[in-house]
Amino acid sequence: MSTTKNHVIGVVHPGLMGISVANALIEAGHRVCWCSENRSAASAQRAGDYSLHDCETLAALCNECDFIFSVCPPAEALVVARAITECSFNGVYVDCNAVSPATGKSVAQVLSASGAHYVDGGIIGPPAWSAGTTRLYLSGPRAAEVTALFEGSLMGTVSLGEAVDAASAMKMAYAGWTKGSAALLLSLFAMAEHHGLGEALKQEWALSQPGLEKRLNSIAQGNAPKAWRFIGEMQQIAATMEDAGQHPGAFESAVDVYAAMADFKSSPAHDITVEAVIRSLISTSKQSAS
Amino acid sequence: MSTTKNHVIGVVHPGLMGISVANALIEAGHRVCWCSENRSAASAQRAGDYSLHDCETLAALCNECDFIFSVCPPAEALVVARAITECSFNGVYVDCNAVSPATGKSVAQVLSASGAHYVDGGIIGPPAWSAGTTRLYLSGPRAAEVTALFEGSLMGTVSLGEAVDAASAMKMAYAGWTKGSAALLLSLFAMAEHHGLGEALKQEWALSQPGLEKRLNSIAQGNAPKAWRFIGEMQQIAATMEDAGQHPGAFESAVDVYAAMADFKSSPAHDITVEAVIRSLISTSKQSAS
Repeated sequence: MSTTKNHVIGVVHPGLMGISVANALIEAGHRVCWCSENRSAASAQRAGDYSLHDCETLAALCNECDFIFSVCPPAEALVVARAITECSFNGVYVDCNAVSPATGKSVAQVLSASGAHYVDGGIIGPPAWSAGTTRLYLSGPRAAEVTALFEGSLMGTVSLGEAVDAASAMKMAYAGWTKGSAALLLSLFAMAEHHGLGEALKQEWALSQPGLEKRLNSIAQGNAPKAWRFIGEMQQIAATMEDAGQHPGAFESAVDVYAAMADFKSSPAHDITVEAVIRSLISTSKQSAS
Repeated sequence: MSTTKNHVIGVVHPGLMGISVANALIEAGHRVCWCSENRSAASAQRAGDYSLHDCETLAALCNECDFIFSVCPPAEALVVARAITECSFNGVYVDCNAVSPATGKSVAQVLSASGAHYVDGGIIGPPAWSAGTTRLYLSGPRAAEVTALFEGSLMGTVSLGEAVDAASAMKMAYAGWTKGSAALLLSLFAMAEHHGLGEALKQEWALSQPGLEKRLNSIAQGNAPKAWRFIGEMQQIAATMEDAGQHPGAFESAVDVYAAMADFKSSPAHDITVEAVIRSLISTSKQSAS
């Protein structure tokens, strides 16, 4: 596959992950655009910091770009695709969102109305600010062109072949463990605390599950500020499990757990202790029981 | 608390865990009984190997013993308690089973009919054949007497105080992680394989989740032969979560996973590969979808 440079590429939206995708594409020699219409001051600040070109409107962005990357919360994936189609975009559209294969296929179908080409993407890892931390999984008939865009950048790519839904399924399976097991551990610890047994459970873990208390602490503090946006992702994984013939219950539980933690979005970091997070799970359950 | 010896203690039933409880009590200087009525040849063999006294009938066992330990699958816990009460047992009854606090309280209520004293127990660890591997958690007003029985044996004990349900809750919280996270991992891997992505997922794990493939293999091979008896335990944990105001879905999923693996009970060890276990999860889901 030959290296490609000098494409004009749109990134909607330059959030914490999106800006690292944009930066990788700039590193690889492309011109990267966004549009400031209806976006937050934080997005505008990030776009400015990394010298993204502002097309101002989505219509202008769709007109200028050969490729568009969608990096947004899962619940927005279809909304963004519809808006792009209404702007008659007919280039290559890379959906990088944590959505189920079924949602991905719906995005593909929406795009076909304007003749755009869907490529399925799934990002595993943190925003790509260091080499080797982050991989963009890609699949679909036009995936190879997207892989080529990132050559020489901090964003790794892995091709999963021609299937239109492989990258989405990969992201669901991976995040299902990291975020699903985290929700399970938090919820079990909340149950133990409900019985006044948190300390006893930690003592047993110290003997027979080394590292688990540390994992609980790191999960509580790491996931609480982001829990609000895990809710939609857990719903997508539940649907993916059901479509694959697996019971979706673990992710219905996880939706509940992250919903109970959603208010930590706006908490100062020093208020996010494991005790506070567990308390939020216990008090939410008391509210819904009453 | 003073050391106690020379009690006459019943153990129903001497299964793989029960026989190690019996052995610990013999080590500590007690006479241990069982009853062969309606029990399997394997139980009789184990009881003989460790020189348990055979009272033959449950009525004789209840008449001879000061303490009775119930070690059985969770679905049998109430059945055993009812049978003991019908034999007018009025000593100390230790329920060591993996049951919810609510089931434990039902056992206590059943026992009160004959004046027996309920002690809540929960065993964490494998059968106690080496020092330090296994702990019997105990709670309730008469728990201290039970703790004293094990002094000088391979079975560790941990007292959780006077609450009638603390030991059960402790077991549920602990097993909820070990067996619940195992079910989650198996089910997610089955979903990935459904999409033809098992190998790709393992490659990603090798980069960013070190040890997870090894854990998958060890879970599949270790849990498959025992999956049939995890089903009841997962149901008990689901009920425990719900009673504590936590979403029970993760354990409804786990019931499905272990039910799909139940037939491995009678498989020769060399047939239990991770591939065969994952296949059982995928083919069960296909059957229920059709």
